[in-house]
Amino acid sequence: MSLLLKRLLVGRPMRSARLGETLLPTWLALPVFCSDPISSVAYATEQIVLVLAAGGLAALTQTPWVGLAVVMLLVVVVASYRQTCFAYPNGGGAFVVSRDNLGETAALVAASALLVDYVMTVAVSVVSGVVAITSALPELAPHAVALSVGFVVVLALANLRGTKESGRAFAVPTYAFIGLTLLMFVVAAVKGWGGTLALAETARLPLPATIHIGGMFTVILLVRAFASGCTALTGVEAISNGVPAFRKPKSRNAALTLTLMGVIAVTLFAGITLLAVRLQACAEPDGNPSVISQIATSVFGGGSALFYLFQAATAGILILAANTAFNGFPVLASILGRDRYLPRQLHNRGDRLVFSNGILLLAGVAVALIVGFDANIDKLIQLYIIGVFTSFTLSQVGMVRHWTRELADERQPRRRRSIRRSQAINLVGAVSTTVVLVVVFATKVAHGAWLAVTAMILLFFVMRGINRYYARVSHEISAEDVAPTLPARVHAIVLVSRLHRPALRALALARATRPDVLEAVTMELDAAETRELVGEWARRDLPVRLKVLAAPYRDLAQPLVEYVRELRRYEPRSVITVFIPEYVTTRWWQNLLHNQSALRLKGRLLFTPGVVVVNVPYHLGVVDQGWLGAAAPEQVGTTLKL
Amino acid sequence: MSLLLKRLLVGRPMRSARLGETLLPTWLALPVFCSDPISSVAYATEQIVLVLAAGGLAALTQTPWVGLAVVMLLVVVVASYRQTCFAYPNGGGAFVVSRDNLGETAALVAASALLVDYVMTVAVSVVSGVVAITSALPELAPHAVALSVGFVVVLALANLRGTKESGRAFAVPTYAFIGLTLLMFVVAAVKGWGGTLALAETARLPLPATIHIGGMFTVILLVRAFASGCTALTGVEAISNGVPAFRKPKSRNAALTLTLMGVIAVTLFAGITLLAVRLQACAEPDGNPSVISQIATSVFGGGSALFYLFQAATAGILILAANTAFNGFPVLASILGRDRYLPRQLHNRGDRLVFSNGILLLAGVAVALIVGFDANIDKLIQLYIIGVFTSFTLSQVGMVRHWTRELADERQPRRRRSIRRSQAINLVGAVSTTVVLVVVFATKVAHGAWLAVTAMILLFFVMRGINRYYARVSHEISAEDVAPTLPARVHAIVLVSRLHRPALRALALARATRPDVLEAVTMELDAAETRELVGEWARRDLPVRLKVLAAPYRDLAQPLVEYVRELRRYEPRSVITVFIPEYVTTRWWQNLLHNQSALRLKGRLLFTPGVVVVNVPYHLGVVDQGWLGAAAPEQVGTTLKL
Repeated sequence: MSLLLKRLLVGRPMRSARLGETLLPTWLALPVFCSDPISSVAYATEQIVLVLAAGGLAALTQTPWVGLAVVMLLVVVVASYRQTCFAYPNGGGAFVVSRDNLGETAALVAASALLVDYVMTVAVSVVSGVVAITSALPELAPHAVALSVGFVVVLALANLRGTKESGRAFAVPTYAFIGLTLLMFVVAAVKGWGGTLALAETARLPLPATIHIGGMFTVILLVRAFASGCTALTGVEAISNGVPAFRKPKSRNAALTLTLMGVIAVTLFAGITLLAVRLQACAEPDGNPSVISQIATSVFGGGSALFYLFQAATAGILILAANTAFNGFPVLASILGRDRYLPRQLHNRGDRLVFSNGILLLAGVAVALIVGFDANIDKLIQLYIIGVFTSFTLSQVGMVRHWTRELADERQPRRRRSIRRSQAINLVGAVSTTVVLVVVFATKVAHGAWLAVTAMILLFFVMRGINRYYARVSHEISAEDVAPTLPARVHAIVLVSRLHRPALRALALARATRPDVLEAVTMELDAAETRELVGEWARRDLPVRLKVLAAPYRDLAQPLVEYVRELRRYEPRSVITVFIPEYVTTRWWQNLLHNQSALRLKGRLLFTPGVVVVNVPYHLGVVDQGWLGAAAPEQVGTTLKL
Repeated sequence: MSLLLKRLLVGRPMRSARLGETLLPTWLALPVFCSDPISSVAYATEQIVLVLAAGGLAALTQTPWVGLAVVMLLVVVVASYRQTCFAYPNGGGAFVVSRDNLGETAALVAASALLVDYVMTVAVSVVSGVVAITSALPELAPHAVALSVGFVVVLALANLRGTKESGRAFAVPTYAFIGLTLLMFVVAAVKGWGGTLALAETARLPLPATIHIGGMFTVILLVRAFASGCTALTGVEAISNGVPAFRKPKSRNAALTLTLMGVIAVTLFAGITLLAVRLQACAEPDGNPSVISQIATSVFGGGSALFYLFQAATAGILILAANTAFNGFPVLASILGRDRYLPRQLHNRGDRLVFSNGILLLAGVAVALIVGFDANIDKLIQLYIIGVFTSFTLSQVGMVRHWTRELADERQPRRRRSIRRSQAINLVGAVSTTVVLVVVFATKVAHGAWLAVTAMILLFFVMRGINRYYARVSHEISAEDVAPTLPARVHAIVLVSRLHRPALRALALARATRPDVLEAVTMELDAAETRELVGEWARRDLPVRLKVLAAPYRDLAQPLVEYVRELRRYEPRSVITVFIPEYVTTRWWQNLLHNQSALRLKGRLLFTPGVVVVNVPYHLGVVDQGWLGAAAPEQVGTTLKL
């Protein structure tokens, strides 16, 4: 039943050999890996305007300059990451680059930052996608949390089916958003030329009195606006992480996609920022209607079909931006699982060759975050970009060292020049992102980012702890200098409650294993029943001694565990094998009708050292029981139907 | 942690040998077994008045006569059950009596009736106790469901601690209710004598016009009123069921308690009914304030301390009436479990020597009923007495046959006279209860009792089905003509993922069991890892063949199950033992860090016939591993702490 549901939602299992088939062509890689950075142009401008509005109209006029700074940073970071794509064709996320060049500690810091960042990407993107919906349909606003959670679930399911199929489903909104935004620019240009372009609806909002420009306050304001605008850069690193998912030549295709993404993001961001200035759009404190939807209202007209289409595309790409994280998080978690920084289950591929456990983990934490923050985009976005720039910085610094080492091994002058060039690009990237990280940390930490920082620190120590635990276990179980010798003696115990067929089978099996000592043990719950068993045992003249243990508290486990412990005191190098006859039923409700004491017993024995439990199942109602003593065939054939 | 909570709520485990200590003296047996019949006087009068009011004032004047009929029936039933106490000193509930004298079908009908009846007793008593509380404190009315459920939980906990302790806690409200009701009669007599007795607050309610007395309508009304008044008889059978819980001489003490109960119930019921007539109390359609609380208001004065004390005692005894069912249900369920009509778990005594599973089951179903019926007493009470009178009738008819058989074996004239006398009493009981059963069925079945009837029919077939299932299993596993012969061959398989200490231990143990065939098996998930294992295996020159199974779907269970099935095709009379090395961790979170694939594997193998799973646990971080191959001691001593 639950299996059927799983097949319906996720699809049939795929063979490991089909792993190569899930590789992505460039036109699909763009929506899969770049919906996050492209979609962030939908809210980055608003974040700038929101901060600058506090400085009045004079500060607002600085918007284009702040936007330009963000665009330049974007160009630098894209150029930097292009180098990474070539240097790390097997995937060069911040974790891998840091580990290879900066050591374990830096790598774990990067990994913590990335994991937090991915979770934030899902939460922020989905919630702001829902804001795009509620901007167009205000009556849905009360259901924002439920809508957001629903979208996360849909994304998780799509990704459980596999990367390629999800990429195809996600291509439409990405290209629709790009196309519609470009169309908006054209329409705005035409209308602006004709003088029919209306101002934004918030254009005449009362602003604070103009403040003296050039003072310390304005500088801080500009810095804060820049820090907020940097949300446009989130998700840029996803491609460098996902190089192995590209078709060959992997590195070249990845770099190409990265460049494409940079061009698109810069174009859209610049256009939207200029339009916001031209239309004098202000940000509402609750983000509703958003700046981008105000622009669309002015350009397309509020009730027009194009307006609703644009809002739908915006919502679509924002929600799918979360998909970038669904592609990145499970791969990173899998690498961390393989390297034993996270539980190894995260390294396993599921039925559909995707890292199912990572997908489920990401969706779970994101849902918790959305519910915990009541789907409030303003609060969520404060936690966001510290993680992003931490990993940017570590990645770029790592790349600079990477090239230094490459240079040391390289003698060919042309190659050395190329390496020097790459290193210079990464150095610019490293310096820029370091500066921005300091700025972001200083301006955001008091506004909620401390939570993200705390989560990163916690993750760091948890991952280091897990790694040390695995290392200890690995040392403990290492068999380097162990020769497989046999136990001194095997002492077999067969548990018997009544003299029925399952008990006789267990007894026969125990005898077939030729133990050094073999005895049957029964626990006395009811004196009359025990007397009957002892009598029957004697009458049958069974070649095994029957021992009766008292169970004064009607708990079967305690007396047996005590008996076994006593045995081990006398023969500490023996192994004690306990044979437990067990019913196996064909229908679930039949389990209700059989005493579950065997289960409890097994649980207790598991924690008793030196004991090995042997389950001897008896399949009720099954004709083919395999070997079965000397059963009369017509008895074996009894089938059970109720 | 959960164990600590259990100890706190339920107390320490008790030895089986202390079973005798929980026997009850008469003064404790009365509240334990009789709170139900005694407390039902609190609502029986109201049920009569409620029906008669539909016939107007003229019909209401018939109340004393209807009450008299109920009293007479009560006397007859009490006299009948006294005979049962003597005839069945080991407990003569309707089930036992029916089974011994009327056969399996009748016994199962009686058992179904009793089980339904016990559940209804809990629901009805607790809910009407809560009505007594909300009559005095109307502001609690919205929390009726939560209050009722809370009381059921408290009762269940008290009973999980054991009968005697719960009896002691329950004595106070029972005796308080009896004493205060008698005090109320005295005060009413004095005030009546002095002419200061006020009428009930509903005395002047508009009644339907008086209807011609003597018509068919009036007859039906009287019959229905009588049927409703019969709720006074619920719970009378509890004592005959619980004879073994009395101190010696058990039968005599039980009969004495029964008589005492009869006297008390008749006195209180007669007094309350007469007072209701005298004060012209009418029943409100929603039962709030109840007739008995109106009487208390008139007699004691609305705001007086005595009034609140009386309401508290009424609520107390009503809620504790549910305790009668908590004493009866688990014992009956235990008998049914022993006789294999219900799951055998119900036959086990828990830590405190009570039938814990029965207590939990009863509480669970009662809570479901209370929540399902929204704690509405009017609807719940309709389901009630059909079960009661079904078991009464079967019990009395069974007793009549019992005496017939006794008579056949008895020659002594004095004894024969005594038997004849007992039989006559039971015959009167049988005829009366049969008539009442017909009346109750006819008047109640359309008003909701069909649900109780349906539940009884369902229970009947479920119990018969369970019995037949157990009989089939018992026949299937019977070892009457089976000699314990050994399997043809033992084919041992050791699962290996890496060559670590747990794997070597499993291998050593498998060799120690001297199987006919021994091989190691590994599942190929990752080609490189498998190559490494094969190389290591060859390097070590292990004396066991290593077989590699492909796992193209990354599911370990499927290839192994297929391999085992293939083996069995060639050697069907062999047993295949699968040795699985398994980590046992000392802390719960460590389990998260180990792959749980072994668990899944074991689940699948359990359902594969002819396979026996041997768990070879490796206790991580434990120094004493028992036999452990030739481990260097300093390695064994590594303890794990994170």
